[in-house]
Amino acid sequence: MTTLAKAYAAQSATTPLSPWQFERRDLNPHDVQFDILYCGVCHSDLHQARGEWGGEMFPMVPGHEIVGRVVAVGSHVTKFKVGDLAGTGCLVDSCRECSNCQHGLEQFCLNGGSYTYNGFEQDKKTPTYGGYSNTIVVHEDFTLKMPENLDLAATAPLLCAGITTYSPLRHWNVKKGDKVAVVGLGGLGHMGVKFAAAFGAEVTVLSTSADKEADARKLGAHKFVVTKDEAQMKAVRGYFDFILDTVSAQHDLNAYLGLLATDGTLCVVGIPSTAQPVHHFSVIAGRKSLAGSSIGGLPETQEMLDFCAEHNIVSDIELIDIKDIENAFERMQKGDVRYRFVIDMATL
Amino acid sequence: MTTLAKAYAAQSATTPLSPWQFERRDLNPHDVQFDILYCGVCHSDLHQARGEWGGEMFPMVPGHEIVGRVVAVGSHVTKFKVGDLAGTGCLVDSCRECSNCQHGLEQFCLNGGSYTYNGFEQDKKTPTYGGYSNTIVVHEDFTLKMPENLDLAATAPLLCAGITTYSPLRHWNVKKGDKVAVVGLGGLGHMGVKFAAAFGAEVTVLSTSADKEADARKLGAHKFVVTKDEAQMKAVRGYFDFILDTVSAQHDLNAYLGLLATDGTLCVVGIPSTAQPVHHFSVIAGRKSLAGSSIGGLPETQEMLDFCAEHNIVSDIELIDIKDIENAFERMQKGDVRYRFVIDMATL
Repeated sequence: MTTLAKAYAAQSATTPLSPWQFERRDLNPHDVQFDILYCGVCHSDLHQARGEWGGEMFPMVPGHEIVGRVVAVGSHVTKFKVGDLAGTGCLVDSCRECSNCQHGLEQFCLNGGSYTYNGFEQDKKTPTYGGYSNTIVVHEDFTLKMPENLDLAATAPLLCAGITTYSPLRHWNVKKGDKVAVVGLGGLGHMGVKFAAAFGAEVTVLSTSADKEADARKLGAHKFVVTKDEAQMKAVRGYFDFILDTVSAQHDLNAYLGLLATDGTLCVVGIPSTAQPVHHFSVIAGRKSLAGSSIGGLPETQEMLDFCAEHNIVSDIELIDIKDIENAFERMQKGDVRYRFVIDMATL
Repeated sequence: MTTLAKAYAAQSATTPLSPWQFERRDLNPHDVQFDILYCGVCHSDLHQARGEWGGEMFPMVPGHEIVGRVVAVGSHVTKFKVGDLAGTGCLVDSCRECSNCQHGLEQFCLNGGSYTYNGFEQDKKTPTYGGYSNTIVVHEDFTLKMPENLDLAATAPLLCAGITTYSPLRHWNVKKGDKVAVVGLGGLGHMGVKFAAAFGAEVTVLSTSADKEADARKLGAHKFVVTKDEAQMKAVRGYFDFILDTVSAQHDLNAYLGLLATDGTLCVVGIPSTAQPVHHFSVIAGRKSLAGSSIGGLPETQEMLDFCAEHNIVSDIELIDIKDIENAFERMQKGDVRYRFVIDMATL
């Protein structure tokens, strides 16, 4: 028996989000159904609701930072029981057979993963609808166990902003004593600072806004560099082992590559709408790397949540009513959020 | 007592190379003097002689693939004796004190290494003159031991083309079973193929010229892809663990990043004159890296030469008279050399 779900949806790229109803599937034997209590608002929700990436499908129910409490489980489910906390991030399924899936890298599924919204289930024809809704049905393998000891609303952004920054810091083995920079102090950047600091690195925030320094230090940063200040930038040339670049606006990658020490890596996790010019010399001098990373696989996402539970890490959030979502989009576009909007789904 | 050296020099960016004389320094206690028997012709010789990189100094004596036989040694020299073979590559000195120098990465000397020509000695004022000359004086620490069992003329290009390709293949740990592509089959590329094959990798040459396939296979390549052929390119999407990109002309890096498997690295060693556009998505999808590498340090250069001696690896060369250098430049510019010109210095 399907469930009629209440949601906010974009009916087209040019219409504001508004109430909509649709059906969640009946539970398969391995499915978990959970009522959504909170859903984070990611910049990619805005991009896609506005049709900015191309190929968007409407109606669209955004939202992939989804947490709630289990209300039903399929007959074969072993991981969850009714009443448990549960979460779902950017993926609700993948092929499970390719070499990446078999190595826990479902985000790079070679046959195409099922994104939580604006995508298809693995049948490649049933559309997926995200977390700006009151309930969701997800295979237990793509349902995360959420920490019981943390502020639940503030854990929602861990499922995208959290894993997107945790994963590259882990993959490039950021550790005690490393000099790490985080570019951009937004939803992703503020989580990057928290994780890099938790891993024992010396953390510097590189930001265009001098007025973010106090916040950066409060989040755990040890140093702060205003990127518009040439003298400050010059002082950290060749300094960093690893730079996590969370900015999705146009920006000069060569300037940041110049801040890396020999063998350093600049890892981008934001996606500017156009290609960025890179001088070969920027990577050749000092054997540097420009790398990219995308969310994380399911095992690493659970590892990250467990790490957060142990180290008491959550996002800094502003809780909003769902009727204020368009206003939140506007403020997010101006960078006016410290640091993540989370929708209180009780307001739906 | 200084030595009057005979040479070919560019007197300006617009004049052809022509005979010139200058003084090589008297031997310091740790210096080796060797008479130059052969000198390879690198594309960067042409770039710099024509003033294409900016900041060039004239008169310029190009040449940094220099081999010959020792004719004199300073009083404290222990590594060489008169009559030994000797070689010098792109560097004749470095600060020896920075962390990179202390780790054998003199090519990334943080205080500025002394390039073999168009540079300065460590006093930062005495100009350096390269190997298009009959004799050279170099500190023993920057003088390489050349294999006695190989064709000496054909070992000269190992000192730049060789180490430039050997070093990244070693650094990114290319090994048996890895799928490696080499982009461009020129002076660098043909050495990349030989080394990657010697390391046990499955080697594919990616080239615009279908007529290079037979040569590629003779050099050790197992596969050949014509990059202008869309179907051939599509067939290797997501295929390679490592791509060594030796091309210094403009080319679409995103197309090559698309050929990498998850966690793959595209390493560039050529320097196009302008920045190349890179889509963040090209590195984010599959957690890929765009990296760079530059020649190699002194310990690794000696390691490479010893590896070549053991595995019987040399460059494929065309031996030329020094009076034909301008013609060689012209042919090199058209890619009409298989695969490296080497000047027979007896013709000077």
